[in-house]
Amino acid sequence: MPRYKLVIEYDGSPFCGWQRQADDLTVQGAIETAVTRFSGEHVRLTCAGRTDAGVHAIHQVAHLDLAKDWRTDTVRDALNAHLRPQPVAVLSAEIVPESFDARHSAIRRHYRYRILNRRSPAALTRAHVWHVPWPLDVGLMHAAAQRLVGRHDFSAFRAAECQANSPIRTLEQLDVARAPMALHDEIVVATAARSFLHHQVRAMVGTLMLAGCGRLSADDVAEILASGEKRRCGPLAPAAGLTFVGVDYAFGK
Amino acid sequence: MPRYKLVIEYDGSPFCGWQRQADDLTVQGAIETAVTRFSGEHVRLTCAGRTDAGVHAIHQVAHLDLAKDWRTDTVRDALNAHLRPQPVAVLSAEIVPESFDARHSAIRRHYRYRILNRRSPAALTRAHVWHVPWPLDVGLMHAAAQRLVGRHDFSAFRAAECQANSPIRTLEQLDVARAPMALHDEIVVATAARSFLHHQVRAMVGTLMLAGCGRLSADDVAEILASGEKRRCGPLAPAAGLTFVGVDYAFGK
Repeated sequence: MPRYKLVIEYDGSPFCGWQRQADDLTVQGAIETAVTRFSGEHVRLTCAGRTDAGVHAIHQVAHLDLAKDWRTDTVRDALNAHLRPQPVAVLSAEIVPESFDARHSAIRRHYRYRILNRRSPAALTRAHVWHVPWPLDVGLMHAAAQRLVGRHDFSAFRAAECQANSPIRTLEQLDVARAPMALHDEIVVATAARSFLHHQVRAMVGTLMLAGCGRLSADDVAEILASGEKRRCGPLAPAAGLTFVGVDYAFGK
Repeated sequence: MPRYKLVIEYDGSPFCGWQRQADDLTVQGAIETAVTRFSGEHVRLTCAGRTDAGVHAIHQVAHLDLAKDWRTDTVRDALNAHLRPQPVAVLSAEIVPESFDARHSAIRRHYRYRILNRRSPAALTRAHVWHVPWPLDVGLMHAAAQRLVGRHDFSAFRAAECQANSPIRTLEQLDVARAPMALHDEIVVATAARSFLHHQVRAMVGTLMLAGCGRLSADDVAEILASGEKRRCGPLAPAAGLTFVGVDYAFGK
């Protein structure tokens, strides 16, 4: 009973998030249905980072077990054929040891958040950015972000419905920068941690937006973190701007 | 009666092209309707490069005349408000001399064509790329492209319905390259000319695709050009991959 590791890209726009639901279209549900159509088997997928409705992925990782020993190229191509026309693509499939678990073997998750910072709304990228029409100072945002890096109680940046056992997380990276020339109206927030609380990235980005327009200082952001009070953090940044961009496994898994 | 120059971004996916039509949604129609809603005036827009159905723009330029002397920021913001939720954004509006004509003053048009060259289909970029699943050699494509640069009769790369007086065009640039790292599965074709024939860019890209998979040599491409026979050129590359990226005017207009 081989275990397959899948690398997956999806546009989150039409989906009610990753996690299978009885009546709504989800990424997990779409892929599990495609697996059944091609193999006849009913399986459960486990992914590295469950994403909310509207959140995208360019490199989500999931694993599943199949009774039959299919060629990995066949698994990839058959899933893509059965997923059509939904905006989900399996980029690769490989056979991994049973000890590999897409969720529990992960040692670091990477997310990117895109802000379109210009007066005019988004046209081409409207499903992939947060449009902030007032000017943002990227230097102020990055400086404030550094106050969140490290091991902290992130209760102030946690969804009420978050199911994690502990609000303690170690934020390894939170960089704010202008995008390269061709996308000069964009600000990109790049972040990495072993794991994140529910809504943590979007709550941090909403708070950094307030730092970028001068409504919060870096000290204010540090105080919000220390307070643990959710009502003090900034607005929850919209899901559309968020993309799951990668996951690290020990031993290159 | 001031003349306004608009810089416009749009996602071509939902539109039947730029040009106003009686019954179909077009970019020109959408903007003209927005002008009427905000100013009460009925105007006609003239653009630098009319795009086909499904073709995008990040920097289209158009001009229009209004009876009233509005502030340029007001024109931009009011148009954007009335265009919502259609994927068209006016990036800037400025007052220009009556001698400026978005179409006739243009001395160079720039287009970009994106090919997603990987086995798996596009998920995130599906409305913005041509998915070519077999391997393409970018070096072969670029070498063949150089045989099209210069002043030629482009009849072999011209739509049957093209209304240009002459098939002679001077192709100034046709570069084929891998996109930067983050988009490493993408091939980008960048092209520029004073003007293009109808379907010329998409017909050239379709032919370069055949050069990239070894079905046509650079000499073959040169012969197709010299033959002037449309039946010999490659497939018409899909509209979704094409974006109008800019236009040059004399004196920086």
